[in-house]
Amino acid sequence: MKKVRAAIVGYGNIGHYVLEALQAAPDFEIAGVVRRAGAENCPAELSAYPVVKNIKELKDVDVAILCTPTRKVEEYAKEILALGIHTVDSFDIHTGITALRRTLDAEAKKHNTVSIISAGWDPGSDSIVRTMLEAIAPKGITYTNFGPGMSMGHTVAVKAIEGVKAALSMTIPTGTGIHRRMVYIELKDGYEFDKVAAAIKADPYFVNDETHVKLVPSVDALLDMGHGVNLTRKGVSGKTQNQLFEFNMRINNPALTAQVLVCVARAAMRQQPGCYTMVEVPVIDLLPGDREEWIGHLV
Amino acid sequence: MKKVRAAIVGYGNIGHYVLEALQAAPDFEIAGVVRRAGAENCPAELSAYPVVKNIKELKDVDVAILCTPTRKVEEYAKEILALGIHTVDSFDIHTGITALRRTLDAEAKKHNTVSIISAGWDPGSDSIVRTMLEAIAPKGITYTNFGPGMSMGHTVAVKAIEGVKAALSMTIPTGTGIHRRMVYIELKDGYEFDKVAAAIKADPYFVNDETHVKLVPSVDALLDMGHGVNLTRKGVSGKTQNQLFEFNMRINNPALTAQVLVCVARAAMRQQPGCYTMVEVPVIDLLPGDREEWIGHLV
Repeated sequence: MKKVRAAIVGYGNIGHYVLEALQAAPDFEIAGVVRRAGAENCPAELSAYPVVKNIKELKDVDVAILCTPTRKVEEYAKEILALGIHTVDSFDIHTGITALRRTLDAEAKKHNTVSIISAGWDPGSDSIVRTMLEAIAPKGITYTNFGPGMSMGHTVAVKAIEGVKAALSMTIPTGTGIHRRMVYIELKDGYEFDKVAAAIKADPYFVNDETHVKLVPSVDALLDMGHGVNLTRKGVSGKTQNQLFEFNMRINNPALTAQVLVCVARAAMRQQPGCYTMVEVPVIDLLPGDREEWIGHLV
Repeated sequence: MKKVRAAIVGYGNIGHYVLEALQAAPDFEIAGVVRRAGAENCPAELSAYPVVKNIKELKDVDVAILCTPTRKVEEYAKEILALGIHTVDSFDIHTGITALRRTLDAEAKKHNTVSIISAGWDPGSDSIVRTMLEAIAPKGITYTNFGPGMSMGHTVAVKAIEGVKAALSMTIPTGTGIHRRMVYIELKDGYEFDKVAAAIKADPYFVNDETHVKLVPSVDALLDMGHGVNLTRKGVSGKTQNQLFEFNMRINNPALTAQVLVCVARAAMRQQPGCYTMVEVPVIDLLPGDREEWIGHLV
């Protein structure tokens, strides 16, 4: 069986976990890693692989797994699709997904390639569950409750506030899609806690949520990459009320995102040219090997 | 928008709920109902629709929803696919799925039609969840725990035992995919409870499970179509252990099966000729209307 040759583009936290997921996958080969610094100061675990500044320096790449910041996804994807290489990403700005899909769909079709976007756990695998539940109980309400777990976006927002030396924003689910924000900070010298806390609570990221700010001696001592989801739907199938559904996860956040990216990299090899979200890809295409064998085992 | 014209083939319990789901769907039109008795002794709710003995008597059918017993699915599907009509069914003999898929795939391709098989909740929507979890945590164990709820197959098996006048077999989950069978019976005159109970416990349907048989004054008084699933997976994403997933449902059994059938009837209109299980169909195809609008809303 010819293995799929994947490049990791961007080597931060997610890139590191993607490396592990590729190493564990039976059907992938690591074509190399693209980082801004190239091979300079390269982490030891990359010593077996080509590490370059530009993906063009890598040989025979089938698919590029974009592990860049979300806001860089479009730029990198366009560039790489134009080289005839499939791309996958975990673009996570929910309101920007349909626009990105349109742009990359045109680009992918032009270059006879495939792009699968917003493939993480939310958006991503949660989207598959939400879509399926919407179909099998067409009337009703779905609530996606996140956490407890660290919110990257909210943590970055706190760090940007004057006087904050270090920060962690935890998302705590209180049900029906409503979340409490627990913010842990260290202060820079010469700042007053009460004023900084008020500034955090007034920030657009926090102003609409119940937010608690706590001063701690070490933010680093609190960091944990566990996260969770509780997704519920109560709805109507046909004319029958009170159909109850629930999906729960307690997971290592970057490890799951990375595994989903590797699954969609595989699926990208099996789609017609164009750009897709995960709900547009048959779930069986996420698995390696023979379709019929999986059907006998899983259906 | 042109509506999809669906025929209901077989009008038992599932057929009745399919009628309701079609009436509630915005994009379907009921072409008619096929029953062995034709229009004779026809239930009142069918008065607005053509009721016939053979699907050939109905006009412009796009898709036939098979609500026949599982063992009749292959025969009906072949016959109807040959008429150029798509078919969907909820064939539920897990070990027979790949064979049925091969047979109907050849038939569907020959007649330029689509067949989606084994589309209920298990096999069906549960299969989508199992497949997705296998992909996003490739190492680990999935347990599907059913119930509490009535098992049709086990109930039929009890009724076949000598001396049983009426029966109900409930499936009770005890975790890790192991189930207890609670069997409620009425006895025919002249039979001894202990002997009948022993015969039930020795039946191949029950011999490997913890089985309790209870004599009750009225089986009918116990009947309830609620059912449930608790599906769990603990697995490894990449090299990260202890990823925890859980899917729960508490549902009206035939109502959910019927709604899934209507969803796949819609999806059948959107696939290339051939035969598919639900895991081979993008979940977005289960929903009516515009794909991009749903993506903006659900992904």
